[in-house]
Amino acid sequence: MACSLFPTLPYLGKRRIANKRRVPYDRHMASDFAKLFYPSSVAIVGASVKPDSVGNSLRHNLNTFKGAVYYVNPNHTDLDGTVCYPSVSKLPAPVDLAVIATPAASVPSIVEEAGKFGIKHLVVISAGFRETGPEGAKLEEEAKDLSLKYDVTLVGPNCLGIMNPEIGLNTSFAGDLPMDGSIAFVSQSGALMTAILDYAKKWRLGFSKCVSTGNKATVDETDLLSYLATDEKTKVILLYVEDISDASRFITAAKKVSCVPSPKPIIFLKSGRTKEGSHASASHTGALGGVDAYYSALARQSGSIRVATISEFLSSAMVASSNVAPKGSHVAIVTNAGGPGVLITDEAIDFGLHLAELSAASIEKLQSQLPETARVHNPVDILGDAKAERYESATRTLLADPAVDSLLVLLTPQSGTEITKTAEVVAGLPTDKPVIASFMGQDAVTQGITILRGKGIAVTEYPEDAARALGRFSAFAARGCPIPSPFSYGHMDAERVRSILWHLPNTEGFIPEREAGLILSAYGFPILTTIQAASTEETVAAVQKIGVPCAVKISSPAISHKRDVGGVILNVTANTASDAYETIMKNVRAHVPEARVDGVIVKEMAPLGLECILGIVKQPHFGTMVMVGMGGTYVEVTKDVAFGVLPIDLFDAKEMIASLHARALFDGYRGTPALDVDALIDGLGRLGRLAQDFPEISEIDINPFTLYPKGKGAKVVDVRMKLA
Amino acid sequence: MACSLFPTLPYLGKRRIANKRRVPYDRHMASDFAKLFYPSSVAIVGASVKPDSVGNSLRHNLNTFKGAVYYVNPNHTDLDGTVCYPSVSKLPAPVDLAVIATPAASVPSIVEEAGKFGIKHLVVISAGFRETGPEGAKLEEEAKDLSLKYDVTLVGPNCLGIMNPEIGLNTSFAGDLPMDGSIAFVSQSGALMTAILDYAKKWRLGFSKCVSTGNKATVDETDLLSYLATDEKTKVILLYVEDISDASRFITAAKKVSCVPSPKPIIFLKSGRTKEGSHASASHTGALGGVDAYYSALARQSGSIRVATISEFLSSAMVASSNVAPKGSHVAIVTNAGGPGVLITDEAIDFGLHLAELSAASIEKLQSQLPETARVHNPVDILGDAKAERYESATRTLLADPAVDSLLVLLTPQSGTEITKTAEVVAGLPTDKPVIASFMGQDAVTQGITILRGKGIAVTEYPEDAARALGRFSAFAARGCPIPSPFSYGHMDAERVRSILWHLPNTEGFIPEREAGLILSAYGFPILTTIQAASTEETVAAVQKIGVPCAVKISSPAISHKRDVGGVILNVTANTASDAYETIMKNVRAHVPEARVDGVIVKEMAPLGLECILGIVKQPHFGTMVMVGMGGTYVEVTKDVAFGVLPIDLFDAKEMIASLHARALFDGYRGTPALDVDALIDGLGRLGRLAQDFPEISEIDINPFTLYPKGKGAKVVDVRMKLA
Repeated sequence: MACSLFPTLPYLGKRRIANKRRVPYDRHMASDFAKLFYPSSVAIVGASVKPDSVGNSLRHNLNTFKGAVYYVNPNHTDLDGTVCYPSVSKLPAPVDLAVIATPAASVPSIVEEAGKFGIKHLVVISAGFRETGPEGAKLEEEAKDLSLKYDVTLVGPNCLGIMNPEIGLNTSFAGDLPMDGSIAFVSQSGALMTAILDYAKKWRLGFSKCVSTGNKATVDETDLLSYLATDEKTKVILLYVEDISDASRFITAAKKVSCVPSPKPIIFLKSGRTKEGSHASASHTGALGGVDAYYSALARQSGSIRVATISEFLSSAMVASSNVAPKGSHVAIVTNAGGPGVLITDEAIDFGLHLAELSAASIEKLQSQLPETARVHNPVDILGDAKAERYESATRTLLADPAVDSLLVLLTPQSGTEITKTAEVVAGLPTDKPVIASFMGQDAVTQGITILRGKGIAVTEYPEDAARALGRFSAFAARGCPIPSPFSYGHMDAERVRSILWHLPNTEGFIPEREAGLILSAYGFPILTTIQAASTEETVAAVQKIGVPCAVKISSPAISHKRDVGGVILNVTANTASDAYETIMKNVRAHVPEARVDGVIVKEMAPLGLECILGIVKQPHFGTMVMVGMGGTYVEVTKDVAFGVLPIDLFDAKEMIASLHARALFDGYRGTPALDVDALIDGLGRLGRLAQDFPEISEIDINPFTLYPKGKGAKVVDVRMKLA
Repeated sequence: MACSLFPTLPYLGKRRIANKRRVPYDRHMASDFAKLFYPSSVAIVGASVKPDSVGNSLRHNLNTFKGAVYYVNPNHTDLDGTVCYPSVSKLPAPVDLAVIATPAASVPSIVEEAGKFGIKHLVVISAGFRETGPEGAKLEEEAKDLSLKYDVTLVGPNCLGIMNPEIGLNTSFAGDLPMDGSIAFVSQSGALMTAILDYAKKWRLGFSKCVSTGNKATVDETDLLSYLATDEKTKVILLYVEDISDASRFITAAKKVSCVPSPKPIIFLKSGRTKEGSHASASHTGALGGVDAYYSALARQSGSIRVATISEFLSSAMVASSNVAPKGSHVAIVTNAGGPGVLITDEAIDFGLHLAELSAASIEKLQSQLPETARVHNPVDILGDAKAERYESATRTLLADPAVDSLLVLLTPQSGTEITKTAEVVAGLPTDKPVIASFMGQDAVTQGITILRGKGIAVTEYPEDAARALGRFSAFAARGCPIPSPFSYGHMDAERVRSILWHLPNTEGFIPEREAGLILSAYGFPILTTIQAASTEETVAAVQKIGVPCAVKISSPAISHKRDVGGVILNVTANTASDAYETIMKNVRAHVPEARVDGVIVKEMAPLGLECILGIVKQPHFGTMVMVGMGGTYVEVTKDVAFGVLPIDLFDAKEMIASLHARALFDGYRGTPALDVDALIDGLGRLGRLAQDFPEISEIDINPFTLYPKGKGAKVVDVRMKLA
């Protein structure tokens, strides 16, 4: 069953690079990137005056750069009046950054020449590499090996380039520089980057760094995160990815950004949520959660804000970059229209916010400030005839209330609504709490929106977007900075597991149930007691020793379908043990008189409890995933499972379990007793540790892992284990 | 348990009118509305020249009206050079429509005067009625009664007015008329209407009729649906509601719009999805699904397209009004960028679309038209350097493929992208299949979007919106026009139920379990056989007759807690029946020697099966709801239930069951047998019928209703029934 529970990573489409094996060399230091983003000199290799050529676009786009720009092209001695060098090594001195836009075939030798000459940073815009097939892949490998050999930081190939608006650096061949600001944007799609930067103009979002990662030959999003963690200009990181190699490495880097005392939110958009979107193989239709669940795990463990759409990507960026993180999830809503007020409340609640309960003093103050028919409870309705002054008094009262962590200001353009004046009021609110506005409509509110955005206030186009982005931002802030919390388990007998694995019979990858049980036992799992018995007396003794109803099964290497020969009796107690032994022996002798019989196996029967499932699976290039969820048939339909990327700590395990729909059951539900969640957490931890210690075990499915009331632990009822 | 499973309708906020009792007089005929929307003369009652007054706004807004406009105001003889009449009865002749904007207190007498004079249509904009408290409510009742007395169609009060752009009719006091077009918009919030019409300008949406329903004293959305069903100008209906009275009446009217051979989609936005949004009473925290689930049922049964946000409201309106309904759910996607192509694919799949599988001929043709590295399978990636011509050939090839029901065209502005030319190409595609475009970005694509919208092509701002709206529209089209399909059950013994109810003991509303079982039995439910026995012999005979393991319970009016006195034995078979009787008698005599004992009850024990739940509850003002879902503890946590508004037919019952997450279990899942869904459908139908026949029964909970493999039926294991 295990294999079908775990989907494999998708084929990411013809032009995408799926699952390429990445050398985890981790040689990029923040310092490697400092000169990449802050060069004092840039060379354009493949500079051109040909209209529509990349080399020409680069020349134009680098006009804003505040440092020196050199042209390199063997076919020209000057371009548009500027000297043109025949090759990178003929430059007067090594530049800080060379941008390469020459045919793919020429790139490896340029990398080598640049490396020898002492150029330490390359952006390879040229296409024609891995994305085109095996030949291109070979070229890419060459370029990559040379960049490693000469210790050159190489972005791309097949990318749009990088940007640093602060210094006017635009090494991309599409579009103008965005506004200078605090958002770093790393995109695996150049086209998406272009589109997002175009949307961003209207939204007035400012950027600190933009990187199109292209084929990620040597620099990927993880490397860039490590740099951006230290980049003072960057306050928010936007990340668009199609695939990630080495999830654990990503999580480690991301935690240095998002799980530190002054965290920078990472806003994470991943395409390929659906099988169709990710072109996943049709053979994984039974998958629990799908590959997308692995990325959800990655986002959760890395503390990233995962969004689902481009619109959410932008509104989350705007909300996070224009506000400090809220202290809590309690929002106040002020509106001049009831219906839209309810719509934004709905969305706020759906995205994890809570309505702040206003203090009696606030309510009294609102009563004195607002007309009698206004609603002075949250959401506060200041009525359709509200002028700017009413907005001002209400918003100030709400922001002053300690119960309020953030504020949503909703305006509909009604007759008499003072749109621009209200915008000035909202922009001038003296507060360090997040304030998000939604001025509904188009032409009627444009001026107001322009004023707000001009003053750095987040304004979304639709009220629901504001609530959603604030909800995600608040959840990020609430998660805070989890302290690393290792599991504490007693002794784990790795030596014994090694020995069991060493002595395994050849079973085509599957570890027999008995050995799988022993392996789990060595790692402290609560397995069912199993005793071999060769006589009536031994069977009775075994059942007595186990002390609960047992299953008695024939033990014979020759009999694989034990039930078919009457070789299994369930619910055997001390009273019936003797009978059970005799009956089984009689049955087996009658059915298969020739079989060698070693007696019986007496196995503890687990009492009924809540059936959970624990599992691990290796995901090539991505990492080893651990899973926890609900067992049983019905819940297989509902797929109530959570994944984690190994290694996980106690905090991760608790977060995984808290993300299950069934979590309400664990605390006791409608009279059922609270369950021993600690045993589930413990099992999750042990399983992760086992998978890490023995990478040769490729899949484990403990199903069911039956959970009992608090203090009564859990039992491994069935396990299936596979070697790589 | 029943009461906590069913939430009650919410209090809709201070300014909303909650649960007002509506007289279902159904007197509005389509003809009543013809002159309302197409008057040849309009009077403004309360006309004014005072800036910022409603009477002045109305004067200005009616400037575009192509008919005659009269002013009424007792304080003036002329306004701005136009004659002003002292009262409606002093007008030269009865106008077709009078718009009233005078103080609330004056409204009833104006209604009466207008009615006597022969004015048949009123729009009451004045506020100060039910929304302000009991005094206002009294005024509203007066106005309503008078409008009924004089057979006057009255829209409002407390509304923004109505609009008919076709004839320049704008009786609203906020904003200009929208573009003329095919969308009818009915809104319970005037402010939301203003905002939506403002958004609509940019989207270039055209409207046929707009109505702000306000307090809905006599005209509500249901009345308007009946008119809009016949209105030739209207092709799509946008409906924003906060509450609906008489759900069944709404569904009947809506079906005449959305479930007819040429259906008009009703796009339905309801605020108050969450408890917080709807200010639902805190006592209903255990509610399964919440009141919102009732509205989901209403939307489903009425064939409406339910959307969740304003942005979806608009994009669904745009997509539905600019396209004919697709023949199926198979979409083709063409893109010039891989990542965004995957994002739109994800959303399409999530919203129920399927990727069209292109014919070999189409693929071959695409191969001949596109560069080698293009992706010729769906989604089709025509690469970043695609010019308009490539868009043209690819889109034409896709639209010609019979497997393609609709087309999504995605464009990202890359260097060399021909934005306006591509827009012209898309706008010129010769097809009757839906085509939705998403041109990503802002400034870069504005011109292209303007061209497309100008030519009536739907273009969304973000690609996901396009996929979502197309998905919802395709689901609407796929549902088609369900043929009314009544249940066919055998005899239902209403007489017997009447008799049982007549003879009920006084039990404070709760119907005893035995009588509840008999009532269900009279309506053909498979209940557990129960036999009274007064001796050892009778007990043995009863168990033998029942033929499966039984529960034997003491029968004594004096003993309520049967288990506590040893009065219950389970799993009794013919062999142990005699013992069981004796043991129970011995136990009871030992515990309560004084109790009168009538013998025992022998009750069939239901074998294990899938535990479902069936229920009904009355929802004041809304209707009677029937529920089907999964039983058991875990599923109470997941709340896997579906509601229906009575009456339901077979089609509705099947749709309800198909909407359960657990539906996969019914067909057999991973080796479990297929279940007897017909028994579940049948139970749902019988329950609905029982509730309709006996409105005095206010709540029924059949939990569990245990379902067995196909052909084996189901059993009512436990039931709880309550009288109103």
